[in-house]
Amino acid sequence: MEIIDTASVDSVPGFRALGLSCGIKQSGEPDLGVVLCERLCNAAGVFTTNRVQAAPVLVCKRILKSSAGMVRGVVANSGNANACTGEQGMRHAVETAAEAERVFGLENSSMLVLSTGIIGEPLPVDRIKAGLVKLREGFNAQKGGSFARALMTTDTREKSLAVKFEIQGVPVTLGAAAKGSGMIHPNMATMLVLFTTDAAVSSPCLALALRRAAERTFNMISVDGDCSPNDSVLILASGASGAPLIDSESSPGFEAFYSALLAAATGMARAIVADGEGATKLVEIRVNGADSFDSASKVARAVANSPLVKTALFGEDPNWGRIVCAIGYSGVPVDPDKIDIFFGDTQAVKRGAPSGVPPGQCASRLKKREILLRIDLNQGGSSCSFWTCDFSYDYVRINAEYHT
Amino acid sequence: MEIIDTASVDSVPGFRALGLSCGIKQSGEPDLGVVLCERLCNAAGVFTTNRVQAAPVLVCKRILKSSAGMVRGVVANSGNANACTGEQGMRHAVETAAEAERVFGLENSSMLVLSTGIIGEPLPVDRIKAGLVKLREGFNAQKGGSFARALMTTDTREKSLAVKFEIQGVPVTLGAAAKGSGMIHPNMATMLVLFTTDAAVSSPCLALALRRAAERTFNMISVDGDCSPNDSVLILASGASGAPLIDSESSPGFEAFYSALLAAATGMARAIVADGEGATKLVEIRVNGADSFDSASKVARAVANSPLVKTALFGEDPNWGRIVCAIGYSGVPVDPDKIDIFFGDTQAVKRGAPSGVPPGQCASRLKKREILLRIDLNQGGSSCSFWTCDFSYDYVRINAEYHT
Repeated sequence: MEIIDTASVDSVPGFRALGLSCGIKQSGEPDLGVVLCERLCNAAGVFTTNRVQAAPVLVCKRILKSSAGMVRGVVANSGNANACTGEQGMRHAVETAAEAERVFGLENSSMLVLSTGIIGEPLPVDRIKAGLVKLREGFNAQKGGSFARALMTTDTREKSLAVKFEIQGVPVTLGAAAKGSGMIHPNMATMLVLFTTDAAVSSPCLALALRRAAERTFNMISVDGDCSPNDSVLILASGASGAPLIDSESSPGFEAFYSALLAAATGMARAIVADGEGATKLVEIRVNGADSFDSASKVARAVANSPLVKTALFGEDPNWGRIVCAIGYSGVPVDPDKIDIFFGDTQAVKRGAPSGVPPGQCASRLKKREILLRIDLNQGGSSCSFWTCDFSYDYVRINAEYHT
Repeated sequence: MEIIDTASVDSVPGFRALGLSCGIKQSGEPDLGVVLCERLCNAAGVFTTNRVQAAPVLVCKRILKSSAGMVRGVVANSGNANACTGEQGMRHAVETAAEAERVFGLENSSMLVLSTGIIGEPLPVDRIKAGLVKLREGFNAQKGGSFARALMTTDTREKSLAVKFEIQGVPVTLGAAAKGSGMIHPNMATMLVLFTTDAAVSSPCLALALRRAAERTFNMISVDGDCSPNDSVLILASGASGAPLIDSESSPGFEAFYSALLAAATGMARAIVADGEGATKLVEIRVNGADSFDSASKVARAVANSPLVKTALFGEDPNWGRIVCAIGYSGVPVDPDKIDIFFGDTQAVKRGAPSGVPPGQCASRLKKREILLRIDLNQGGSSCSFWTCDFSYDYVRINAEYHT
């Protein structure tokens, strides 16, 4: 398995992608993109758990159902989330997909739709329609690229990669593009991710693999604990590689495929956290010794979402008292007198009390950009990893000034 | 009922209070205080729900049990929380109370103990002992005041008041002093509150009234969603007013007493939120039309604790999309298409979609220091009020630099 950071969703043979500016963002930055496959793909998606679901999420779910998971591509825009926009928003999302199908000469219900950006304002669907024509012209002129850029809102970096691997000896590629910065939270919050692959995988099996990978990656990250109505993770599998069909967990190629998907999802999840709004630190919280995975992840989430922990990390302050507090209110019946806490490999807390290691030694572990925070509950055999970032002045600046 | 903002716990006849610096805080600010009553008082307390409980909390609970709720006063320190300090911490808390009893010539188990400040460092118990001697000298010299100051950590203002009212025609006073700034959260987080009164109320009845008042006030506020191991709300009732004994909810004086306590608790709760770390806004979130009080308060808490909502309030941005999102992930099965949202009396959201009122008009409601945010779920008849504050640059600065 080889991970190529400079690659993207169109690094998969048979897939093309292009992004450009259609005028939704006042900045003139790319805000509309299309990914197209030369053939029908099996597809699956996992979506936000927020009770408030944006129109594109509802439309994606409908298309995946009506087309039995067979689609040709995705049209995505940034700058406007088409969320809390009522019936008009639903019409706009349907119109966007239908117009993409018409412009690119595709069958009905073969385009999925993603949106991110400001909430509660009507989607400027005329600009999107004009943009789709420009995208077709771009495709005709053999242009490509910029799809991940067209997803960005407060993101500071494009997020994409590709994984090359083999399924029973046949070379296969899996590409990924993502956006996500603020509002990132467990349970799939404000994040768009698209995977493409030329592996042959049935839609139900894609759904299974995607759900399982998301649980271990996108549901284990948090920037500020907020959830969005737009979160979507989609996967399209063309089968064009000629590799044998994977249609169940027991198919010989399943493990290889799942491993590649998990690697790509981990890469995207970490990239999203590292680009958290105003983030200066990428923090991995590893919880060991819990009585269940559920307990471990509750503890990790409570610590990851504590504003006091996050500001301490920004200040490079080994303030383990705040970590102990967050563990204490996580809802897990922990025994405080059994808790061990490590910054990197330096133990700050031993059995609920100071380890005696000088704070300066702990603080030195927080100077780096990537920090490992390890919590041992010493109450069982379950563990988890969770990724988060710190809370900086820039987090406040970005969110006080940027109108989501 | 008259509320006197310039009064405090020692405005109640028979109670004395004094605070001074004993050297726990490097700044030389007051960090040790004692409240003493001339006679034994009935007492009750409500404490943090965090699994991690500081030594003074455990000691208070023990004293309230062993003395059947009869005490003479409270010794309180700031600068050190005596939390996560193991067996040594328990010894230090017991020693602090015992030394106060010895210095002031009181019976055993008659002093309660409160601590707030840095977590995980040994309580400088020798400085406290020396400070207690100075406090006794102060009392002998008829000095008073500064008790609320001695509770302060990142607080910027002293918080105290007194309520004068009558129980069956007899004049009675109830005094209050509090601290609390960061880490304030529903379920009694990092906050110390002490009430004194010369009403005559049995300990069980004090406990009942205190619990009920706390549920409607201290459990309905939030600065940053973090909980502390030290939260304590205590009440001491001397009976010295000569008013008839209140020993049950059906006692004739109960309503008058409870109303005064609720007014004092509301005042302290609002003062704590208004002094939230870096706060520039005091926000009341009123949720109406919920199917239960529990649903209403879950929705209020989710909105109050959303960093995205809090930074938008700091930016005076009527970003109702973030409010709708928080409602959506609150865990309450709301119907998004029924939600109405008002800034003050200006409706921003009608039935889940923009009301059509220009954003500028909504924004003008956010210019004031005190903001009312009203959410109507239109799903039932229950409601609640919740108080929170915004998230500013100063929140980050204070918490990145201050070692709790």
